[in-house]
Amino acid sequence: MKNTATRDKLIETGAELFGQHGYNATGINAVLKTCGVPKGSFYHYFSSKEEFGLAVIDQFAAAYDAQLAELLEDSTTPPLERLRRYFAAGREHMCNCDHATGCLIGNLGQELSGQSDTFRDALDRVFQHWEQHLVGCLQGAQGAGELSAAVPADALASFILSGWEGAILRAKTLKSVVPMEQFEAILFQQVLVPPA
Amino acid sequence: MKNTATRDKLIETGAELFGQHGYNATGINAVLKTCGVPKGSFYHYFSSKEEFGLAVIDQFAAAYDAQLAELLEDSTTPPLERLRRYFAAGREHMCNCDHATGCLIGNLGQELSGQSDTFRDALDRVFQHWEQHLVGCLQGAQGAGELSAAVPADALASFILSGWEGAILRAKTLKSVVPMEQFEAILFQQVLVPPA
Repeated sequence: MKNTATRDKLIETGAELFGQHGYNATGINAVLKTCGVPKGSFYHYFSSKEEFGLAVIDQFAAAYDAQLAELLEDSTTPPLERLRRYFAAGREHMCNCDHATGCLIGNLGQELSGQSDTFRDALDRVFQHWEQHLVGCLQGAQGAGELSAAVPADALASFILSGWEGAILRAKTLKSVVPMEQFEAILFQQVLVPPA
Repeated sequence: MKNTATRDKLIETGAELFGQHGYNATGINAVLKTCGVPKGSFYHYFSSKEEFGLAVIDQFAAAYDAQLAELLEDSTTPPLERLRRYFAAGREHMCNCDHATGCLIGNLGQELSGQSDTFRDALDRVFQHWEQHLVGCLQGAQGAGELSAAVPADALASFILSGWEGAILRAKTLKSVVPMEQFEAILFQQVLVPPA
């Protein structure tokens, strides 16, 4: 039987090092050294660095998905207020990582999309899944009369995800959450408006 | 006298390889091999990989700056139409690189901001400079009565740059310019609106 604790430790360390240095610059040896796992064990769990990278993405996506569902599907909170909490959680994460790592999926998407269709597909599926959470929340807001239905929820979700990922990038280079605050302010003032 | 053609060749190759593989994963040897320059020459022009990286950023920023000025300060075109052309040029670039490299400054910002304050500062200065071009164009649009002055031009510029950088990232993972088109459509429909 494979020891899932070791596999989990490898994946957790991979997410940390990929977040800090990127995928290409992180060698398997660095992962093993950081978490004190012998090399033979790695190949017991993963056939290649690519398979390991995909497992890191899957694991991150699953954990983040649970967080997104908790924030955006919380039926005790009005839909647009859920979105506000999602943005607040993103800013809190950005402060906790000292504006350094930001979004692992965004980082890997930036680095790997042009190099590997396998990674590109995996990362795009994660983004599309996030968009679906946003679509559900926005449709809820439209249904509740909080949000104009003039722009379809799926186009709005794409707009929000692009804007938010870009604001995270700007927050990294500026070492400040101000771009995230500015994005949210104009989004709510101009885009997420009530029905006319 | 230093041979600027060799220096330019090194910088051009660096921009290409950093765009494809990132900064950390691009060794100086790969740069030298790609452009056929001997190792000694490299240290004739640059004292370190970091100095080389900063020169690549400076050179890219200067070339892109000239392009931005041409697009966004073209007084023969109404300001918001200039912005439309800027977005169209971005999409064209994205198609030309087969959605693979995207924005070099965005890529390096994503990769290096958490690792090095020197790079972070250099990349942030480039973004801030781009924002200033956008501010000028947006103020022109407000002055010409094309654009509401309800939101200050500098907040709009930050919003646009975040959204556009994020849309480029999404275009890379989706291998399609649709996220860039969706961002532009909602931006012009909801945000860049005429005075009430």
